[in-house]
Amino acid sequence: MEFDLIRTYFHRPLQNDKIILGNGDDCALLRSNHTLALSIDSLVAGTHFIENAISPFDLGHRALAVNLSDLAAMGATPLAFLLALTLPATNENWLAEFSRGLFSLAEQYALNLIGGNTTKGPLAITIQIIGELPLGKGLQRNAAKIGDAIYVTGNLGRQCIRPYPPVTFAARIVDLAHAAIDISDGLSQDLAHVLTASRVGAVLDLQKIPTTNLDAALYGGEDYELCFTAPPHHEAALQEIARATHTPLTRIGEIIAKPGLWHIHAGKWQALIPRGYQHF
Amino acid sequence: MEFDLIRTYFHRPLQNDKIILGNGDDCALLRSNHTLALSIDSLVAGTHFIENAISPFDLGHRALAVNLSDLAAMGATPLAFLLALTLPATNENWLAEFSRGLFSLAEQYALNLIGGNTTKGPLAITIQIIGELPLGKGLQRNAAKIGDAIYVTGNLGRQCIRPYPPVTFAARIVDLAHAAIDISDGLSQDLAHVLTASRVGAVLDLQKIPTTNLDAALYGGEDYELCFTAPPHHEAALQEIARATHTPLTRIGEIIAKPGLWHIHAGKWQALIPRGYQHF
Repeated sequence: MEFDLIRTYFHRPLQNDKIILGNGDDCALLRSNHTLALSIDSLVAGTHFIENAISPFDLGHRALAVNLSDLAAMGATPLAFLLALTLPATNENWLAEFSRGLFSLAEQYALNLIGGNTTKGPLAITIQIIGELPLGKGLQRNAAKIGDAIYVTGNLGRQCIRPYPPVTFAARIVDLAHAAIDISDGLSQDLAHVLTASRVGAVLDLQKIPTTNLDAALYGGEDYELCFTAPPHHEAALQEIARATHTPLTRIGEIIAKPGLWHIHAGKWQALIPRGYQHF
Repeated sequence: MEFDLIRTYFHRPLQNDKIILGNGDDCALLRSNHTLALSIDSLVAGTHFIENAISPFDLGHRALAVNLSDLAAMGATPLAFLLALTLPATNENWLAEFSRGLFSLAEQYALNLIGGNTTKGPLAITIQIIGELPLGKGLQRNAAKIGDAIYVTGNLGRQCIRPYPPVTFAARIVDLAHAAIDISDGLSQDLAHVLTASRVGAVLDLQKIPTTNLDAALYGGEDYELCFTAPPHHEAALQEIARATHTPLTRIGEIIAKPGLWHIHAGKWQALIPRGYQHF
Protein backbone atom coordinates (compact mmCIF):
# COMPACT_ATOMS: atom_id res chain seq x y z
CA MET A 1 0.00 0.00 0.00
CA GLU A 2 2.78 2.40 0.88
CA PHE A 3 4.41 1.91 -2.51
CA ASP A 4 1.13 2.38 -4.35
CA LEU A 5 0.33 5.59 -2.46
CA ILE A 6 3.73 7.03 -3.24
CA ARG A 7 3.56 6.00 -6.87
CA THR A 8 0.06 7.36 -7.41
CA TYR A 9 0.36 10.73 -5.74
CA PHE A 10 4.01 11.58 -5.41
CA HIS A 11 5.71 10.37 -8.57
CA ARG A 12 6.82 13.06 -11.03
CA PRO A 13 9.46 12.97 -13.78
CA LEU A 14 12.90 14.10 -12.56
CA GLN A 15 13.68 17.60 -13.77
CA ASN A 16 17.39 17.76 -13.12
CA ASP A 17 20.27 15.58 -14.29
CA LYS A 18 22.01 15.94 -10.93
CA ILE A 19 19.39 13.52 -9.57
CA ILE A 20 20.78 10.08 -10.42
CA LEU A 21 17.97 8.12 -8.76
CA GLY A 22 14.69 9.38 -7.31
CA ASN A 23 11.85 7.73 -5.39
CA GLY A 24 11.53 3.95 -5.25
CA ASP A 25 14.79 2.52 -3.92
CA ASP A 26 16.23 2.55 -0.39
CA CYS A 27 17.91 5.90 -0.99
CA ALA A 28 17.84 8.64 -3.58
CA LEU A 29 21.16 9.38 -5.29
CA LEU A 30 22.37 12.81 -6.33
CA ARG A 31 25.57 14.45 -7.39
CA SER A 32 26.48 18.12 -7.33
CA ASN A 33 29.68 20.12 -7.75
CA HIS A 34 28.20 22.93 -5.67
CA THR A 35 27.86 23.47 -1.95
CA LEU A 36 24.64 21.83 -0.76
CA ALA A 37 22.31 23.60 1.66
CA LEU A 38 20.10 21.28 3.72
CA SER A 39 17.22 21.94 6.09
CA ILE A 40 14.38 19.98 7.72
CA ASP A 41 11.04 21.32 8.96
CA SER A 42 7.81 19.78 10.21
CA LEU A 43 4.17 20.85 10.24
CA VAL A 44 2.28 19.04 13.01
CA ALA A 45 -1.54 19.07 13.30
CA GLY A 46 -2.69 20.88 16.43
CA THR A 47 0.61 22.77 16.73
CA HIS A 48 1.25 24.42 13.37
CA PHE A 49 -2.23 24.11 11.94
CA ILE A 50 -5.78 23.08 12.83
CA GLU A 51 -6.65 20.14 10.62
CA ASN A 52 -10.06 21.32 9.46
CA ALA A 53 -9.09 24.99 9.21
CA ILE A 54 -6.65 24.53 6.30
CA SER A 55 -7.31 22.73 3.02
CA PRO A 56 -5.02 19.82 2.10
CA PHE A 57 -3.98 21.83 -0.98
CA ASP A 58 -2.82 24.74 1.20
CA LEU A 59 -1.15 22.33 3.60
CA GLY A 60 0.88 20.78 0.76
CA HIS A 61 1.89 24.24 -0.40
CA ARG A 62 2.73 25.41 3.10
CA ALA A 63 4.79 22.34 4.09
CA LEU A 64 7.10 22.96 1.14
CA ALA A 65 7.06 26.77 1.51
CA VAL A 66 8.40 26.72 5.08
CA ASN A 67 11.36 24.68 3.84
CA LEU A 68 11.89 26.88 0.77
CA SER A 69 12.04 29.78 3.21
CA ASP A 70 15.06 28.17 4.92
CA LEU A 71 16.82 27.85 1.55
CA ALA A 72 16.00 31.49 0.74
CA ALA A 73 17.59 32.49 4.05
CA MET A 74 20.90 30.99 2.83
CA GLY A 75 20.51 32.33 -0.73
CA ALA A 76 20.41 28.73 -2.03
CA THR A 77 18.70 27.56 -5.22
CA PRO A 78 16.20 24.69 -4.65
CA LEU A 79 17.24 21.30 -6.07
CA ALA A 80 15.30 18.45 -4.41
CA PHE A 81 13.33 17.41 -1.33
CA LEU A 82 12.31 14.34 0.67
CA LEU A 83 8.90 13.94 2.32
CA ALA A 84 7.92 12.02 5.49
CA LEU A 85 4.13 11.98 5.74
CA THR A 86 2.25 10.68 8.80
CA LEU A 87 -1.48 10.17 8.22
CA PRO A 88 -4.21 8.81 10.51
CA ALA A 89 -5.69 6.84 7.59
CA THR A 90 -5.43 6.54 3.83
CA ASN A 91 -7.70 9.21 2.35
CA GLU A 92 -7.26 9.37 -1.41
CA ASN A 93 -9.07 12.71 -1.82
CA TRP A 94 -6.85 14.23 0.82
CA LEU A 95 -3.69 12.82 -0.81
CA ALA A 96 -4.75 14.05 -4.25
CA GLU A 97 -5.27 17.60 -2.98
CA PHE A 98 -2.21 17.61 -0.73
CA SER A 99 0.08 16.44 -3.54
CA ARG A 100 -1.49 18.96 -5.94
CA GLY A 101 -0.68 21.80 -3.53
CA LEU A 102 2.81 20.46 -2.93
CA PHE A 103 3.72 20.07 -6.59
CA SER A 104 2.12 23.31 -7.76
CA LEU A 105 4.78 25.06 -5.68
CA ALA A 106 7.58 22.54 -6.37
CA GLU A 107 7.16 22.87 -10.12
CA GLN A 108 7.69 26.63 -9.98
CA TYR A 109 11.27 25.85 -8.99
CA ALA A 110 11.75 22.62 -11.02
CA LEU A 111 12.18 21.04 -7.59
CA ASN A 112 12.30 17.22 -7.49
CA LEU A 113 10.72 14.96 -4.84
CA ILE A 114 13.45 12.30 -4.55
CA GLY A 115 12.42 10.24 -1.54
CA GLY A 116 9.91 9.74 1.17
CA ASN A 117 7.84 7.51 3.31
CA THR A 118 4.30 7.35 4.62
CA THR A 119 3.41 6.27 8.16
CA LYS A 120 0.17 5.74 10.04
CA GLY A 121 -0.22 8.15 12.97
CA PRO A 122 -1.28 11.67 13.98
CA LEU A 123 -1.21 14.00 10.94
CA ALA A 124 2.27 15.50 10.45
CA ILE A 125 4.37 16.49 7.46
CA THR A 126 8.17 16.66 7.56
CA ILE A 127 10.12 17.87 4.56
CA GLN A 128 13.88 17.83 4.16
CA ILE A 129 15.01 20.17 1.40
CA ILE A 130 18.27 20.40 -0.54
CA GLY A 131 19.51 23.48 -2.37
CA GLU A 132 22.69 24.52 -4.12
CA LEU A 133 25.04 27.43 -3.56
CA PRO A 134 28.12 28.56 -5.51
CA LEU A 135 31.24 27.24 -3.72
CA GLY A 136 32.18 29.36 -0.72
CA LYS A 137 28.88 31.30 -0.75
CA GLY A 138 25.89 31.31 1.60
CA LEU A 139 24.12 34.01 3.64
CA GLN A 140 24.97 33.01 7.20
CA ARG A 141 23.50 34.56 10.33
CA ASN A 142 26.88 35.52 11.72
CA ALA A 143 27.99 37.68 8.78
CA ALA A 144 26.33 41.06 9.54
CA LYS A 145 28.81 43.94 9.55
CA ILE A 146 28.67 47.30 11.31
CA GLY A 147 27.32 49.89 8.86
CA ASP A 148 25.24 47.35 6.89
CA ALA A 149 21.76 48.42 5.88
CA ILE A 150 18.96 46.10 7.09
CA TYR A 151 16.29 45.04 4.58
CA VAL A 152 13.10 43.00 4.60
CA THR A 153 11.17 41.57 1.65
CA GLY A 154 7.38 41.53 1.26
CA ASN A 155 4.80 42.73 3.75
CA LEU A 156 5.05 41.54 7.33
CA GLY A 157 2.53 40.62 10.02
CA ARG A 158 0.04 39.00 7.64
CA GLN A 159 0.49 35.34 8.74
CA CYS A 160 -0.17 34.27 5.18
CA ILE A 161 -1.76 30.80 4.69
CA ARG A 162 -0.03 30.20 1.35
CA PRO A 163 3.38 31.90 1.58
CA TYR A 164 5.72 32.34 -1.38
CA PRO A 165 9.22 32.76 0.10
CA PRO A 166 11.48 35.05 -1.99
CA VAL A 167 13.62 32.16 -3.26
CA THR A 168 14.61 33.61 -6.63
CA PHE A 169 15.42 37.02 -5.18
CA ALA A 170 17.50 35.45 -2.40
CA ALA A 171 19.57 33.34 -4.79
CA ARG A 172 20.47 36.48 -6.75
CA ILE A 173 21.75 38.51 -3.79
CA VAL A 174 24.36 36.01 -2.49
CA ASP A 175 27.21 38.18 -3.81
CA LEU A 176 25.76 41.42 -2.42
CA ALA A 177 24.28 40.62 1.00
CA HIS A 178 26.13 39.69 4.19
CA ALA A 179 23.78 38.01 6.69
CA ALA A 180 20.22 36.73 6.20
CA ILE A 181 17.47 34.93 8.11
CA ASP A 182 13.88 34.07 7.27
CA ILE A 183 11.16 35.74 9.33
CA SER A 184 9.31 32.77 10.77
CA ASP A 185 9.06 33.70 14.47
CA GLY A 186 8.60 37.50 14.24
CA LEU A 187 11.04 40.15 12.93
CA SER A 188 12.34 41.17 16.39
CA GLN A 189 13.23 37.61 17.42
CA ASP A 190 14.65 36.52 14.07
CA LEU A 191 16.74 39.68 13.64
CA ALA A 192 17.99 39.19 17.21
CA HIS A 193 19.41 35.80 16.16
CA VAL A 194 21.46 37.57 13.46
CA LEU A 195 22.65 40.22 15.93
CA THR A 196 23.71 37.63 18.52
CA ALA A 197 25.47 35.44 15.96
CA SER A 198 27.23 38.46 14.39
CA ARG A 199 28.01 40.15 17.77
CA VAL A 200 26.52 43.47 16.64
CA GLY A 201 23.42 45.57 17.34
CA ALA A 202 20.78 47.22 15.18
CA VAL A 203 18.66 50.33 15.08
CA LEU A 204 15.34 50.11 13.23
CA ASP A 205 13.12 52.84 11.78
CA LEU A 206 9.78 51.36 12.86
CA GLN A 207 7.86 53.62 10.48
CA LYS A 208 9.57 52.01 7.52
CA ILE A 209 8.60 48.42 8.39
CA PRO A 210 6.23 47.33 5.58
CA THR A 211 3.15 46.27 7.56
CA THR A 212 -0.35 47.31 8.53
CA ASN A 213 0.13 45.58 11.91
CA LEU A 214 3.42 46.56 13.51
CA ASP A 215 2.89 44.35 16.56
CA ALA A 216 2.31 41.24 14.43
CA ALA A 217 5.31 42.16 12.24
CA LEU A 218 7.66 42.47 15.22
CA TYR A 219 6.34 39.74 17.48
CA GLY A 220 4.14 37.46 15.38
CA GLY A 221 5.30 34.59 13.23
CA GLU A 222 4.97 32.80 9.95
CA ASP A 223 5.75 35.58 7.49
CA TYR A 224 8.37 33.52 5.60
CA GLU A 225 9.87 36.71 4.22
CA LEU A 226 13.58 37.50 4.28
CA CYS A 227 15.49 39.83 6.60
CA PHE A 228 19.06 40.52 5.46
CA THR A 229 21.93 42.94 5.79
CA ALA A 230 24.10 44.40 3.03
CA PRO A 231 26.63 47.23 2.63
CA PRO A 232 24.75 50.48 1.80
CA HIS A 233 26.59 50.91 -1.53
CA HIS A 234 24.71 47.85 -2.91
CA GLU A 235 21.36 49.65 -2.54
CA ALA A 236 20.84 50.26 -6.27
CA ALA A 237 21.87 46.72 -7.28
CA LEU A 238 19.55 45.20 -4.68
CA GLN A 239 16.62 47.35 -5.78
CA GLU A 240 17.25 46.32 -9.39
CA ILE A 241 17.13 42.59 -8.46
CA ALA A 242 13.97 43.28 -6.41
CA ARG A 243 12.32 44.86 -9.45
CA ALA A 244 13.43 42.06 -11.79
CA THR A 245 12.05 39.37 -9.44
CA HIS A 246 8.89 41.32 -8.44
CA THR A 247 9.98 41.29 -4.79
CA PRO A 248 8.90 44.17 -2.52
CA LEU A 249 12.10 45.34 -0.79
CA THR A 250 12.31 47.83 2.09
CA ARG A 251 15.30 49.23 3.95
CA ILE A 252 14.31 49.36 7.63
CA GLY A 253 17.46 50.08 9.64
CA GLU A 254 21.18 49.77 10.18
CA ILE A 255 23.66 47.44 11.86
CA ILE A 256 25.54 49.23 14.67
CA ALA A 257 28.31 48.38 17.10
CA LYS A 258 26.14 49.00 20.20
CA PRO A 259 24.69 45.62 21.22
CA GLY A 260 20.93 45.13 21.29
CA LEU A 261 17.95 46.00 19.12
CA TRP A 262 16.94 49.67 19.17
CA HIS A 263 14.57 52.22 17.70
CA ILE A 264 14.46 55.99 18.01
CA HIS A 265 11.28 57.52 19.42
CA ALA A 266 10.90 61.28 19.91
CA GLY A 267 14.65 61.67 19.52
CA LYS A 268 15.49 59.05 22.18
CA TRP A 269 16.99 55.56 21.77
CA GLN A 270 14.63 52.92 23.07
CA ALA A 271 15.32 49.20 23.42
CA LEU A 272 13.14 46.79 21.49
CA ILE A 273 12.88 43.55 23.45
CA PRO A 274 12.96 40.59 21.02
CA ARG A 275 10.13 38.12 21.46
CA GLY A 276 8.07 36.04 19.09
CA TYR A 277 6.65 32.62 18.43
CA GLN A 278 7.79 30.05 21.02
CA HIS A 279 8.08 26.45 19.84
CA PHE A 280 7.39 25.09 23.34
CA MET B 1 13.55 27.38 24.10
CA GLU B 2 13.97 25.48 20.86
CA PHE B 3 17.50 26.81 20.40
CA ASP B 4 18.48 25.96 23.96
CA LEU B 5 17.13 22.40 23.66
CA ILE B 6 19.07 21.83 20.47
CA ARG B 7 22.24 23.35 21.87
CA THR B 8 22.08 21.39 25.12
CA TYR B 9 21.27 17.94 23.83
CA PHE B 10 22.10 17.82 20.16
CA HIS B 11 25.28 19.80 19.67
CA ARG B 12 28.44 17.80 18.94
CA PRO B 13 31.71 18.85 17.26
CA LEU B 14 31.70 18.26 13.49
CA GLN B 15 33.75 15.20 12.59
CA ASN B 16 34.14 15.70 8.86
CA ASP B 17 35.57 18.57 6.82
CA LYS B 18 32.92 18.07 4.13
CA ILE B 19 30.46 19.66 6.58
CA ILE B 20 30.93 23.40 6.05
CA LEU B 21 28.24 24.46 8.50
CA GLY B 22 26.25 22.37 10.99
CA ASN B 23 23.36 23.10 13.34
CA GLY B 24 22.39 26.67 14.19
CA ASP B 25 21.70 28.50 10.93
CA ASP B 26 18.75 28.25 8.53
CA CYS B 27 20.44 25.44 6.60
CA ALA B 28 23.43 23.17 7.03
CA LEU B 29 26.07 23.39 4.29
CA LEU B 30 28.04 20.47 2.92
CA ARG B 31 30.21 19.69 -0.05
CA SER B 32 31.15 16.32 -1.48
CA ASN B 33 32.77 15.11 -4.67
CA HIS B 34 31.01 11.76 -4.31
CA THR B 35 27.52 10.60 -5.18
CA LEU B 36 25.24 11.37 -2.23
CA ALA B 37 22.69 8.80 -1.01
CA LEU B 38 19.68 10.30 0.81
CA SER B 39 16.83 8.70 2.74
CA ILE B 40 14.15 9.79 5.23
CA ASP B 41 12.38 7.64 7.82
CA SER B 42 10.04 8.27 10.74
CA LEU B 43 9.28 6.51 14.00
CA VAL B 44 5.80 7.47 15.23
CA ALA B 45 4.54 6.61 18.75
CA GLY B 46 1.65 4.17 18.63
CA THR B 47 2.60 2.95 15.15
CA HIS B 48 6.29 1.99 15.28
CA PHE B 49 6.65 1.79 19.05
CA ILE B 50 4.67 1.97 22.28
CA GLU B 51 5.93 4.96 24.21
CA ASN B 52 6.36 3.30 27.59
CA ALA B 53 7.60 -0.02 26.18
CA ILE B 54 10.88 1.36 24.82
CA SER B 55 13.45 3.45 26.66
CA PRO B 56 14.33 6.88 25.23
CA PHE B 57 17.92 5.61 24.83
CA ASP B 58 16.77 2.69 22.67
CA LEU B 59 14.44 4.99 20.74
CA GLY B 60 17.32 7.33 19.90
CA HIS B 61 19.41 4.37 18.77
CA ARG B 62 16.56 2.88 16.76
CA ALA B 63 15.54 6.12 14.99
CA LEU B 64 19.05 6.43 13.59
CA ALA B 65 19.46 2.68 12.95
CA VAL B 66 16.44 2.46 10.62
CA ASN B 67 17.98 5.22 8.53
CA LEU B 68 21.46 3.66 8.59
CA SER B 69 19.78 0.52 7.29
CA ASP B 70 18.64 2.43 4.18
CA LEU B 71 22.22 3.60 3.56
CA ALA B 72 23.51 0.03 4.02
CA ALA B 73 21.01 -1.12 1.40
CA MET B 74 22.73 1.18 -1.14
CA GLY B 75 26.25 0.37 0.06
CA ALA B 76 26.71 4.02 1.09
CA THR B 77 29.04 5.29 3.83
CA PRO B 78 27.26 7.48 6.44
CA LEU B 79 28.17 11.18 6.41
CA ALA B 80 25.53 13.28 8.18
CA PHE B 81 21.89 13.44 9.28
CA LEU B 82 19.10 15.90 10.11
CA LEU B 83 16.58 15.35 12.91
CA ALA B 84 12.96 16.53 13.19
CA LEU B 85 11.71 15.77 16.70
CA THR B 86 8.07 16.17 17.77
CA LEU B 87 7.53 16.02 21.55
CA PRO B 88 4.37 16.41 23.66
CA ALA B 89 6.33 18.47 26.21
CA THR B 90 9.88 19.38 27.13
CA ASN B 91 11.24 16.57 29.28
CA GLU B 92 14.92 17.05 29.96
CA ASN B 93 15.51 13.53 31.29
CA TRP B 94 13.91 12.10 28.18
CA LEU B 95 15.99 14.36 25.90
CA ALA B 96 19.21 13.49 27.71
CA GLU B 97 18.59 9.74 27.30
CA PHE B 98 17.29 10.01 23.74
CA SER B 99 20.29 12.04 22.59
CA ARG B 100 22.66 9.66 24.39
CA GLY B 101 21.19 6.70 22.49
CA LEU B 102 21.25 8.62 19.22
CA PHE B 103 24.87 9.74 19.49
CA SER B 104 26.21 6.46 20.87
CA LEU B 105 25.32 4.97 17.48
CA ALA B 106 26.20 8.08 15.42
CA GLU B 107 29.68 8.24 16.87
CA GLN B 108 30.46 4.69 15.76
CA TYR B 109 30.30 6.03 12.20
CA ALA B 110 31.67 9.56 12.83
CA LEU B 111 28.23 10.64 11.66
CA ASN B 112 27.38 14.36 12.09
CA LEU B 113 24.02 15.81 13.14
CA ILE B 114 23.93 18.88 10.88
CA GLY B 115 20.41 20.22 11.28
CA GLY B 116 17.10 19.78 12.95
CA ASN B 117 14.06 21.21 14.57
CA THR B 118 11.88 20.45 17.57
CA THR B 119 8.09 20.77 17.53
CA LYS B 120 5.35 20.35 20.11
CA GLY B 121 2.97 17.51 19.25
CA PRO B 122 2.47 13.74 19.41
CA LEU B 123 5.82 11.95 19.89
CA ALA B 124 7.50 11.28 16.53
CA ILE B 125 11.07 11.18 15.28
CA THR B 126 12.00 11.78 11.64
CA ILE B 127 15.59 11.45 10.51
CA GLN B 128 16.95 12.30 7.09
CA ILE B 129 20.31 10.69 6.47
CA ILE B 130 23.05 11.42 3.93
CA GLY B 131 25.73 8.98 2.84
CA GLU B 132 28.42 8.87 0.20
CA LEU B 133 29.11 6.46 -2.64
CA PRO B 134 31.97 6.30 -5.13
CA LEU B 135 30.85 7.91 -8.41
CA GLY B 136 28.69 5.60 -10.49
CA LYS B 137 28.26 3.05 -7.67
CA GLY B 138 25.25 2.06 -5.54
CA LEU B 139 23.42 -1.21 -4.88
CA GLN B 140 20.08 -0.62 -6.58
CA ARG B 141 17.07 -2.90 -6.34
CA ASN B 142 16.84 -3.37 -10.10
CA ALA B 143 20.34 -4.77 -10.60
CA ALA B 144 19.88 -8.50 -9.75
CA LYS B 145 21.10 -10.79 -12.56
CA ILE B 146 20.11 -14.35 -13.45
CA GLY B 147 22.59 -16.74 -11.83
CA ASP B 148 23.39 -14.40 -8.91
CA ALA B 149 23.64 -15.98 -5.49
CA ILE B 150 21.30 -14.48 -2.85
CA TYR B 151 22.74 -13.62 0.57
CA VAL B 152 21.47 -12.29 3.87
CA THR B 153 23.42 -10.83 6.79
CA GLY B 154 22.80 -11.51 10.49
CA ASN B 155 20.03 -13.57 11.99
CA LEU B 156 16.47 -12.93 10.87
CA GLY B 157 13.10 -12.97 12.61
CA ARG B 158 14.36 -11.53 15.89
CA GLN B 159 12.69 -8.07 15.69
CA CYS B 160 15.64 -6.60 17.53
CA ILE B 161 14.97 -3.48 19.67
CA ARG B 162 18.44 -2.05 19.14
CA PRO B 163 19.47 -3.04 15.61
CA TYR B 164 22.98 -2.54 14.22
CA PRO B 165 22.60 -2.47 10.42
CA PRO B 166 25.62 -3.91 8.55
CA VAL B 167 26.80 -0.48 7.35
CA THR B 168 30.54 -1.16 7.19
CA PHE B 169 30.07 -4.53 5.48
CA ALA B 170 27.67 -3.01 2.93
CA ALA B 171 30.04 -0.18 2.00
CA ARG B 172 32.76 -2.74 1.25
CA ILE B 173 30.71 -4.90 -1.14
CA VAL B 174 29.68 -2.17 -3.61
CA ASP B 175 32.10 -3.47 -6.24
CA LEU B 176 31.08 -7.13 -5.74
CA ALA B 177 27.30 -7.17 -5.24
CA HIS B 178 24.60 -6.41 -7.80
CA ALA B 179 21.27 -5.63 -6.07
CA ALA B 180 20.54 -5.02 -2.37
CA ILE B 181 17.65 -4.12 -0.06
CA ASP B 182 17.31 -3.90 3.70
CA ILE B 183 15.01 -6.38 5.40
CA SER B 184 12.56 -4.09 7.18
CA ASP B 185 9.21 -5.62 6.17
CA GLY B 186 10.07 -9.36 6.11
CA LEU B 187 12.48 -11.22 3.80
CA SER B 188 9.79 -12.48 1.40
CA GLN B 189 8.31 -9.04 0.79
CA ASP B 190 11.62 -7.18 0.60
CA LEU B 191 13.22 -9.74 -1.72
CA ALA B 192 10.09 -9.57 -3.89
CA HIS B 193 10.74 -5.83 -4.41
CA VAL B 194 14.20 -6.72 -5.80
CA LEU B 195 12.72 -9.42 -8.06
CA THR B 196 10.03 -7.11 -9.43
CA ALA B 197 12.46 -4.24 -10.02
CA SER B 198 15.02 -6.56 -11.66
CA ARG B 199 12.39 -8.55 -13.67
CA VAL B 200 13.74 -11.88 -12.42
CA GLY B 201 12.69 -14.67 -10.04
CA ALA B 202 14.37 -16.45 -7.14
CA VAL B 203 14.55 -19.87 -5.57
CA LEU B 204 15.37 -20.07 -1.85
CA ASP B 205 16.72 -22.91 0.24
CA LEU B 206 14.51 -22.33 3.30
CA GLN B 207 16.70 -24.54 5.49
CA LYS B 208 19.62 -22.17 4.97
CA ILE B 209 17.82 -19.04 6.19
CA PRO B 210 19.61 -18.03 9.41
CA THR B 211 16.74 -17.95 11.88
CA THR B 212 15.11 -19.79 14.75
CA ASN B 213 11.70 -18.54 13.57
CA LEU B 214 11.24 -19.07 9.82
CA ASP B 215 7.78 -17.51 9.77
CA ALA B 216 9.02 -14.29 11.41
CA ALA B 217 12.05 -14.23 9.08
CA LEU B 218 9.92 -14.52 5.93
CA TYR B 219 6.88 -12.49 6.93
CA GLY B 220 7.83 -10.40 9.98
CA GLY B 221 9.54 -7.07 9.95
CA GLU B 222 12.19 -4.89 11.51
CA ASP B 223 15.28 -7.04 11.07
CA TYR B 224 17.34 -4.24 9.47
CA GLU B 225 19.68 -6.80 8.00
CA LEU B 226 20.77 -6.82 4.35
CA CYS B 227 19.56 -9.05 1.50
CA PHE B 228 21.72 -8.81 -1.64
CA THR B 229 22.66 -10.64 -4.79
CA ALA B 230 26.12 -11.18 -6.26
CA PRO B 231 27.74 -13.36 -8.94
CA PRO B 232 28.71 -16.76 -7.41
CA HIS B 233 32.40 -16.26 -8.23
CA HIS B 234 32.59 -13.48 -5.60
CA GLU B 235 31.74 -15.95 -2.82
CA ALA B 236 35.24 -16.07 -1.30
CA ALA B 237 35.74 -12.29 -1.46
CA LEU B 238 32.36 -11.69 0.20
CA GLN B 239 33.07 -14.18 2.96
CA GLU B 240 36.43 -12.50 3.58
CA ILE B 241 34.74 -9.08 3.99
CA ALA B 242 32.13 -10.70 6.25
CA ARG B 243 34.89 -12.10 8.47
CA ALA B 244 36.80 -8.80 8.54
CA THR B 245 33.69 -6.85 9.57
CA HIS B 246 32.31 -9.52 11.96
CA THR B 247 29.14 -9.83 9.85
CA PRO B 248 27.32 -13.18 9.77
CA LEU B 249 26.77 -13.92 6.06
CA THR B 250 24.62 -16.73 4.63
CA ARG B 251 23.93 -17.78 1.06
CA ILE B 252 20.23 -18.68 0.89
CA GLY B 253 19.31 -19.05 -2.78
CA GLU B 254 19.73 -18.07 -6.41
CA ILE B 255 18.31 -15.57 -8.89
CA ILE B 256 16.52 -17.35 -11.77
CA ALA B 257 14.78 -16.35 -14.99
CA LYS B 258 11.41 -17.88 -13.96
CA PRO B 259 9.38 -15.04 -12.37
CA GLY B 260 8.23 -15.35 -8.77
CA LEU B 261 9.66 -16.47 -5.45
CA TRP B 262 10.10 -20.23 -5.06
CA HIS B 263 11.39 -22.93 -2.77
CA ILE B 264 11.85 -26.66 -3.35
CA HIS B 265 9.98 -28.99 -1.01
CA ALA B 266 10.19 -32.81 -1.36
CA GLY B 267 11.62 -32.34 -4.84
CA LYS B 268 8.78 -30.06 -6.05
CA TRP B 269 8.87 -26.31 -6.80
CA GLN B 270 6.49 -24.44 -4.54
CA ALA B 271 5.57 -20.76 -4.73
CA LEU B 272 6.34 -18.57 -1.73
CA ILE B 273 3.75 -15.77 -1.59
CA PRO B 274 5.45 -12.54 -0.48
CA ARG B 275 3.79 -10.78 2.42
CA GLY B 276 5.05 -8.81 5.37
CA TYR B 277 4.60 -5.70 7.44
CA GLN B 278 1.93 -3.37 6.00
CA HIS B 279 2.40 0.36 6.60
CA PHE B 280 -1.36 1.03 6.45
